[in-house]
Amino acid sequence: MSGAQPVRIGLLGRGTVGGAFLELLSRREAAVVAATGRRPRIAGVVRRSEGDFDEVVADSEIVVELIGGTDPAREYVLRALREGRHVVTANKQLIAQHGDELFDAARQAGVQLRFEAAVAGAIPVIRVMQESLSATEITRVSGIVNGTTNFILTEMASTGAAYSDALGRAQELGYAEADPTEDVNGADAAAKMAILARLAFHSAVSLDDVAYEGIEAIQPDDLAYAKEFGLSLKLLGVAERHGGEISVRVFPCFLYRGHPLAPIEGAFNAVTVEAPAITEITMSGPGAGGTETASAVLGDVVSIIAGEAPVHMPRDRLSVTRDLDSAFYLHLEVADRPGVLAGVADVLGRNEVSVKSVVQWGLGEDARLVMVMHQCPESRFYAALSEMAGLEFLRAQPRAIRVIEEEFV
Amino acid sequence: MSGAQPVRIGLLGRGTVGGAFLELLSRREAAVVAATGRRPRIAGVVRRSEGDFDEVVADSEIVVELIGGTDPAREYVLRALREGRHVVTANKQLIAQHGDELFDAARQAGVQLRFEAAVAGAIPVIRVMQESLSATEITRVSGIVNGTTNFILTEMASTGAAYSDALGRAQELGYAEADPTEDVNGADAAAKMAILARLAFHSAVSLDDVAYEGIEAIQPDDLAYAKEFGLSLKLLGVAERHGGEISVRVFPCFLYRGHPLAPIEGAFNAVTVEAPAITEITMSGPGAGGTETASAVLGDVVSIIAGEAPVHMPRDRLSVTRDLDSAFYLHLEVADRPGVLAGVADVLGRNEVSVKSVVQWGLGEDARLVMVMHQCPESRFYAALSEMAGLEFLRAQPRAIRVIEEEFV
Repeated sequence: MSGAQPVRIGLLGRGTVGGAFLELLSRREAAVVAATGRRPRIAGVVRRSEGDFDEVVADSEIVVELIGGTDPAREYVLRALREGRHVVTANKQLIAQHGDELFDAARQAGVQLRFEAAVAGAIPVIRVMQESLSATEITRVSGIVNGTTNFILTEMASTGAAYSDALGRAQELGYAEADPTEDVNGADAAAKMAILARLAFHSAVSLDDVAYEGIEAIQPDDLAYAKEFGLSLKLLGVAERHGGEISVRVFPCFLYRGHPLAPIEGAFNAVTVEAPAITEITMSGPGAGGTETASAVLGDVVSIIAGEAPVHMPRDRLSVTRDLDSAFYLHLEVADRPGVLAGVADVLGRNEVSVKSVVQWGLGEDARLVMVMHQCPESRFYAALSEMAGLEFLRAQPRAIRVIEEEFV
Repeated sequence: MSGAQPVRIGLLGRGTVGGAFLELLSRREAAVVAATGRRPRIAGVVRRSEGDFDEVVADSEIVVELIGGTDPAREYVLRALREGRHVVTANKQLIAQHGDELFDAARQAGVQLRFEAAVAGAIPVIRVMQESLSATEITRVSGIVNGTTNFILTEMASTGAAYSDALGRAQELGYAEADPTEDVNGADAAAKMAILARLAFHSAVSLDDVAYEGIEAIQPDDLAYAKEFGLSLKLLGVAERHGGEISVRVFPCFLYRGHPLAPIEGAFNAVTVEAPAITEITMSGPGAGGTETASAVLGDVVSIIAGEAPVHMPRDRLSVTRDLDSAFYLHLEVADRPGVLAGVADVLGRNEVSVKSVVQWGLGEDARLVMVMHQCPESRFYAALSEMAGLEFLRAQPRAIRVIEEEFV
């Protein structure tokens, strides 16, 4: 593959996301070659203070716009499209405010304009709506599309903190900017919902069509109320079809426990799409971080290079292993007499299986021992289990079930 | 668009999914034309008992295989690919057992082989892994990919039912077949995990590489244990990378409360993909129902017709409405004296806003009235709210938050 033909990429902007994109592109270069048959090369980088836009575009097949804001991003993207370059952008304001003009320019030039990273970080909601669901009659899109506000509400719910204290905590941890206005007043979520509504309803939704409210007025006792009644309080974006009309709104609201967005906590984002043919699909993941956004940009770049749908081709020969580390729950029906726990513990200890917790239930002949083990190689646990089957005080086959105990978030 | 060039589709199989696909294709014909510029036409249908395969294939650009099983599906799909037809299939066993041979045939013929519907119904996990994440270093894929077993475990957890009773209930409701063996012993999930592992790790994973266990031995007190410790019990598929090795397994296990798959209940499916660059993405939705599967098949067909990535083009002019029905929570700080509740109720009543529940907290000057309203037009609720602001016993601005109260599932 070292002879793979290069594909030249011009990069506009070199901030957090730009840097993460360059790093990811370099780290995943071999994977891009394997997926597309072509080797990505950076044609040049344009920053506010340096680089010649015309020169970089002239030398690129694909332009990646990561400047942010609409000026000069709008002008740059329009010129790149008109000169026949595919464009990938992470810029929600650009698409929400100038979508019509940009999509027209892309169509006229016969090039692609991709913007997965503009909404919900690495969660591929744009691709799913544009490609998987392009012929689907979407009736509603609901989303938690701002990680800052979801972090603040989660913090208020779990600690009882006031809004201003939770905001301060979000700022400390880098989940909120020094000026959080656009996040907390709902404007950021509104831009993202305008983009989702446009794709869902194939209609030219503009940012001005979105009614929005923020979370600044939420009080700790609103969250106490939510807790008491098993509800979650979220800043939700909702785009709905009502016959020949649509509505697009962002507002704080209570969700009942079974709502697919109710379990989304912290800085995570999630989007639920409803349609008669699919019932509903929910996609969730971390909101925009540098690497997550860069990953969405890279996915768009790879799709443009691949040009058409990939046919799966194995490129690795990985061997398959079966002896892994797992934690286990162990349920034993035992006779309730002295020495039982010691007998079980002895078998576990000799097989180097370590016990995390033990509960004993019942009395007399009906006693049950429920134990949870720490992670260990499964072969060791199963060796202990088969030895245990010979213990004379056991009243039934031991029952073992794995426990997934690590923390994801 | 009535002059749109036709695209001819040959259909193999006319069972539940085949019927749902024909119905959906006819209902969404205008949307397919709008998305692709071409009008879908059924070239012919081949069933076990009728229709000429060679004739139908000769007359088709795209062949949709919905026969199920591997014989004659394997032979038919191979021949269609070799004759230069794109193929869409919903057949998990076909891809899990004969993937290598089929992908080779597609590559040699330069055609597409799409199989979104083979895993997790309408949840677009195949597209996301093949396209959005094709250059991403996936480390783990975890999935609840069998709706029958998740329904049974949810039923056992919520009612305390024994396994056999919960299975009977699933059969009554159509969530389990008369012979549920392949579902409850983990074999169905194993085929789906083989497909996901293949795409995640770009390696030729076969069904034989998957170690699987089922849920037949789960006891009600295992679920009681789970409930007591805030855990969920799920039949999980896990495909993991360990350096140059991988493992692919299906097994029942406990998930802690914060695990992204823990809230997935009933016949729903969900898949979590982890990678350093994206942290994790979770996609969830209903498992395979006729319409959901047909919808995934249609998404694949549209992608093949579209040929390249779509550029968004508005095709509707929907007007945007803002006065919708909502339910509200209303928090009032009031003086605690006779007539307060009556005064509030009077304002609500005159504006035709109906109260669902009321709680009053506190005594003396610190009293709080928390009410939840039934759904009503927002304009009526806001009219009541502005009238209320004039009530002399109100000690602070009323606080109103929407409540999403309808049930999704």
